[in-house]
Parts: sequence; structure tokens; C-alpha cells
Amino acid sequence: MPEFLELVTPDEALRILFNSISPVINWEVVSTEIALGRITAENILSTQDLPDFRRSTVDGYAVIAKDTHGASESLPAYLKIAGEVPMGTAPDFHLEGKVCSIIHTGGMLPEGADSVVMLEDTQILDAGELEIYRSVAVSENVIEIGEDVKTGDIVIPKGVSLRPAEIGGLMALGITSIKTARKPRFAILSSGDEVVPPSKTTRPGQVRDINSYTLGSLIQVLGGESVHYGIISDNRNDMLTAVEKALQECDHLIVTAGSSASSRDLTAEIINRMGDPGVLVHGVSIKPGKPTIFGVSGDQVMIGLPGNPVSALVIAYILVAPIIEAYLGLDSEKPKPSLQAKITVNVASQAGREDWIPVRLIKTALDEYLAEPVFGRSNLIFILARSDGLVKIPAATTGIEAGTSVNVRLI
Amino acid sequence: MPEFLELVTPDEALRILFNSISPVINWEVVSTEIALGRITAENILSTQDLPDFRRSTVDGYAVIAKDTHGASESLPAYLKIAGEVPMGTAPDFHLEGKVCSIIHTGGMLPEGADSVVMLEDTQILDAGELEIYRSVAVSENVIEIGEDVKTGDIVIPKGVSLRPAEIGGLMALGITSIKTARKPRFAILSSGDEVVPPSKTTRPGQVRDINSYTLGSLIQVLGGESVHYGIISDNRNDMLTAVEKALQECDHLIVTAGSSASSRDLTAEIINRMGDPGVLVHGVSIKPGKPTIFGVSGDQVMIGLPGNPVSALVIAYILVAPIIEAYLGLDSEKPKPSLQAKITVNVASQAGREDWIPVRLIKTALDEYLAEPVFGRSNLIFILARSDGLVKIPAATTGIEAGTSVNVRLI
Repeated sequence: MPEFLELVTPDEALRILFNSISPVINWEVVSTEIALGRITAENILSTQDLPDFRRSTVDGYAVIAKDTHGASESLPAYLKIAGEVPMGTAPDFHLEGKVCSIIHTGGMLPEGADSVVMLEDTQILDAGELEIYRSVAVSENVIEIGEDVKTGDIVIPKGVSLRPAEIGGLMALGITSIKTARKPRFAILSSGDEVVPPSKTTRPGQVRDINSYTLGSLIQVLGGESVHYGIISDNRNDMLTAVEKALQECDHLIVTAGSSASSRDLTAEIINRMGDPGVLVHGVSIKPGKPTIFGVSGDQVMIGLPGNPVSALVIAYILVAPIIEAYLGLDSEKPKPSLQAKITVNVASQAGREDWIPVRLIKTALDEYLAEPVFGRSNLIFILARSDGLVKIPAATTGIEAGTSVNVRLI
Repeated sequence: MPEFLELVTPDEALRILFNSISPVINWEVVSTEIALGRITAENILSTQDLPDFRRSTVDGYAVIAKDTHGASESLPAYLKIAGEVPMGTAPDFHLEGKVCSIIHTGGMLPEGADSVVMLEDTQILDAGELEIYRSVAVSENVIEIGEDVKTGDIVIPKGVSLRPAEIGGLMALGITSIKTARKPRFAILSSGDEVVPPSKTTRPGQVRDINSYTLGSLIQVLGGESVHYGIISDNRNDMLTAVEKALQECDHLIVTAGSSASSRDLTAEIINRMGDPGVLVHGVSIKPGKPTIFGVSGDQVMIGLPGNPVSALVIAYILVAPIIEAYLGLDSEKPKPSLQAKITVNVASQAGREDWIPVRLIKTALDEYLAEPVFGRSNLIFILARSDGLVKIPAATTGIEAGTSVNVRLI
């Protein structure tokens, strides 16, 4: 398939790819303590009620609600104080008759009690008697058994990225290890005869490898694992050997082509030789990133990205991220970090092509944001370093007018 | 200072704290390859021009622009092809007279050349002659030396969290290690006689430790390091010993109190005994999280959080995050992950108190978001696990009306 014979839209490119693969979510058991950011590989069910005893939500007195009926400042109720609920153990007494017991926030209600009167609505009299100035209803100031979750409830669905709140919820239930999606492992190869490792001093005509590191970092951010295969020369045999090895050792493959058309063609040729169905997409109507290649061999995805570091990174945010999410089983409907902002200038774009414009965000006095396009040639990596996010100009339009509210995809 | 004698606003609480400390940014040198998410501890200057040679941005022919002046389809310019620029090395020829040379994207312009004609605007004739159908201006299709950055430019300012784009930019410059802010180390202590480790089976009246894990995870997310000191009983001597040890070993301290008022008072007392100025804030007009304590001993910050896991985690997002950012030297003006959404129902709130409401986000057909409050008692941890973010109801208002556009702070 020669380069750019048939451009497809970005959405179409992903649709074609996803029609050719059936992502299987591999899982591994991980200790909950270190599961932050990992994705659940199955629905997680509660094995118990939470709480599993009736807890007071306030400091005060455990009572039988009906004993407080009608109580007011002018006509208090009077109850005998029968004891104090200790923290962390079940009370060794129960309430019956006109009695109450001291209880602290989080304490377990004694049997017989059905509600708690707040400390500030009471006063202790001599002889261990309590004066109550406010009536309570049954269950008032009490968390009932199973009020947070019940045995068998799905507490965290499959495909959820674990945040501090989920880690806490799992710990509350005593679930100290869980099945999470194994991180899909992406091999990363840079090619180009002009590319040298960052630690090297460049000679005239040489540039340092950027793509291995931008893509490797982004894959980590997105929840995958990256394995670096270094810089491969634009030589058919070297490339073939490197790609074969990478596919044996990793789940998927990303090759950034050298900058020239011949180098990109070589990438496509090698991807095609790796197995069926081979190259599925060669050229996407998107800017930056037109020379993007999607290929598949069996259940392995092979992605050819432009050598231009800005194009490669933008395409990774826009088109590689959904692939990683698919292999993580991540719920793709979850909101992505983004911000609404007003674009500061008119931005023109070619109809029929989806454009992604790097923007810098500026906070206004009203706590709103302005999105200021960071102009410059699309192959200058510091353009992205100076940007906070990307704004999409849809293919159907020829640009956006200054002042339009746009969604900024944070990068 | 007895509990809640004098509530201060959340902003005032931070102001009081920041008036008593002068955060010093400790730094450590980190390999750029693993510096993702780390914060720069100094301005990073470019040690070279980037690019450091004139590069072509297209596949085509390096030319002297004036040789193409007036060229068109009907009146082409004709140049002799003098050679081909190899990738990755300086061309060993220069252009003079009516000559051009084949050049690939990213290739180095030969001396004498000042622009590049795109391949598609040319045709090769016999005898190594090139027909050119379009004139180019000086510098057209060329990245000039230093066009991305110049020697001495601040390429990444101090206080920036490194994203894939910055990692790539550093690599492009051959900056393979940098000074980053050392992660501030927070000791985390849980207290409460009712609290047991998550791995334990609970007896009636006991609950598992949630706070150590939610707070520990969040501190990691925010760029700090957490050190767990486990669960300390609500006993003055045990608590004193544990807090002293924690302050010796860590930079700062977070204690989550037991649920009861006496346990919270004990936390305040211990914090006060650690040194001057001691407790600065005891009680904040915020919901959840009123019993929050800020204290300082020398250059160590001590934070007392409510035992209620939801309160503790919300306060960590709202009031502990800025403290960690200060010790990382993070530019706090950078936009935080958030989303605009329309709140689905009326939410009432008490004037004079800042409320933070957990909400679930629902995407509409128009790609907008609705924010649906997740109601339930404020001490149920799964309330937060079911929420995507928090919405602030400012102290000056008594609630927000259904349909109001609100900023959702993603959690």
C-alpha cells in the first residue's frame, strides 16, 4: 500500500484497527497498597456489609428514640446514663427502660439503642441523669449496617482506574489484593540514520533521539509499559531483525520512522511483512501526523509514527491512547483531563482534515481560561513543552474564530 | 487552643500556615529518562542552539532561492542536480551557480543553499536536470539554526512538572540529568482505638484503617513521598513517642485523629507539644473537614485530619495539596485537572461555610457534562469512590441552583 494513496479520518483509522483486533485483557494480582493507577480486571464485589455494625456519627448519647419524643428546651426528657460505649469493642450492656449510654463518634450502638442524641442537645444532671432538649428519630445520627455497601454489591466495576478513594474503599473491606489488567508492553523503536542517542554529542546533520523518550513516558502515563529497542538504522535487514525481536518480546510495537518518505515506506513494508492482516491504515487526514500507519499481525498491534517528534507525540495522545486503553479494558467513557477555554485568535484549518493545535492556557481574573495557540513549525519539540494542551479543529470546519469556547485536551 | 473556638476559612487557614513557614526546595539530581512527573528545581537553560544546523522540513531539492524566482508551470526554472544530501552527516559539497541537490526531510542544507523546493513542485529531466514549477523564498521549507531554542534560552522554568514533551525537549538538548525537587516526605499516622490494619478480620466495633492508604496514595499522586507509621492507640504516651519518631525521620507529618472529640483534642495537644509555634489553626469553616488542624514546629508542618475517611481525603485534596506543592516549588498557577459541568439538582449549603460536594459526571449527547451530586452520609468512603470530582459551594452563598455551570475538581 503506497504512502497516502488513501487517507482515512482519525476515527475511521481507529475503527478499522478495532475491527481487526479483539483485545484480551491479561490480568495479574497486585497488592492493593501499590495498585494506585492500575485498572480493575474484573468487577470487585463486597465480601461484607460496610459498616458491619451500627455506628454513631456524632459524640453524644445512644438512646431509644421513643424515649426522647416531645423533648424540648422547655420540656426536656430525662434518661439514666447506663454506661459508656468503649471504642473498638462491642458494648457489654444493652439499653432497656429509660436509659441511655455515652457514645463517641464511630462507636458501636448498644443493643436496644436505635439513635443517638448529640452532646450539645443534652446536659448531665447529678446522680448520672441526662437532660435531653431535642427529640431524635429512629436511626438519627446512626450509620446502619450495610449503609455504605452491602455484601455482594459491586463496589468497583471492571475497567476502573484506581484512585486514592478506591484504594481506601478496598482497604475498608479488607480486600488487600486484586486482579488488575497487566500493563500492555509496547516495544519502541526509533529509526533514522540521522538519529543518535541523547547522551551523544551530535555531529553536523545529526539529531538526538526524542521519540523513544516522549513515547515511552506517555505510554507509562497511559498505564502501559515501554521497552526501548534503541535506534535502528534505515536498513531493511537491521529493521527487520529488530522488529521481529521486538514482537517476540513485547505485546505491541511502535516504530517512529526516519524523517524521509523512503524511511516511512520502509516502516510500512516491514510492518506488512510481519504477518496478516499487515498494514491496515497508511495515512490519516490529521495534522500533525498524516504519515501514521496502523498494522496488525495476529493479536499484535504495530504502529508506525512520523519521525517528527511533535507529530509522533500528538498522534500518541490522540490515536495511540485509545489503543492502550482498549488493552487495559479501561472504561473509555470516563472523563479525560480537559478544560474549557476561549481561544484568543482566529485559527484557520483545511476542511477535510482534523487539526490539533497546541495551546497555552492563561487564567483570567474571572478564573476562566484563555487558550492561546503556540505557533511555530510543527517539528519543534519545545512548541509542545510550552503548551498546556491541544485543541481539535474538526475536519468539517475551516477554522475557529477568536472567542470561541473550545475544549482543551490537557497534555 | 480548644477545639473549634475560632473557625477560620480554608483560604485563611492556608494563609496563616504559609505565613509561618518558608518552604525550602531541596533538590536531587535525577536521570531525565526517569524524571517524568518530577518538578524542576531550577531554570533549565539550553546549552546549544536547536537545531544546530539548517534542516529541511520536506523531501525535495535544496536550492538558492533566487534561482527559482518567477518559476511557474508555464515557465519553469531549470537547475542542475549536483548531488544528494546524505542523512546524518554534513554534505561534502556546496551549492553555487545554477545547481541544486536532492535533500530529505531532516537533512542538512549544503552551504550556499538557502531554501528547499518540495518534490511535488519539480520533475527530473534527463541529464540530471531539474524542472521547478514554483518559486521559493529564502528560508522556505527550512528550519533555521536556533529556531526551536537558542543557547542560553530558559527551556524549562523552575517549578514545572515534567511531562513527555519536556522529557523529549531535554533529550533533544542532550540534557540527560537534571536537578529536581526532592519529594517532600510525609509521615502518616492513623489513630483511633477502633482502627485495625486492613489485613485484619474486624471484631464488632472495629473498622479497618482507610486513611493511611487514601492519604498515602494521594501524596504520591501529588508528587510527595509517604511513610506509614501505622495505627497508634489513643494514648498520650504512645502518640507522643510515635509523633516524635515520625518528625525525626520525615519532613512533615499527617495524623488522622480517632473519630471522637477527645481523640481530636489529643492530636492537637501532641502537635502543640512538638515545638513552636505549635498549633496555628484548629477548626476550619469547611464541610467536610471542620476539625482540621495545622501546626508548625520549626520548618516541619504538622497536619491533623479528621478520622472520618471522606473528610480526611477531601481536606487532603483541598488543603494538603497546596502544602505539598509549596514544598515542591510547583508553579501553582498551572491549571488543575477540572471540567465544567451543569449541576443536576439544587444543592443547599450553610452560608459562611465552604462546602465541597462529591459529584459523578455524566456525558451528554452534546459532549457536555452533567454533575450529579452523590448524596449519602459524609463518612461513607464509597461515596468518593463513586464520584468523579468535587464541586465547591462558596461560603458566601447558600447553595447552587440546578442547571448552574460549575467547575468540577477531578479527584
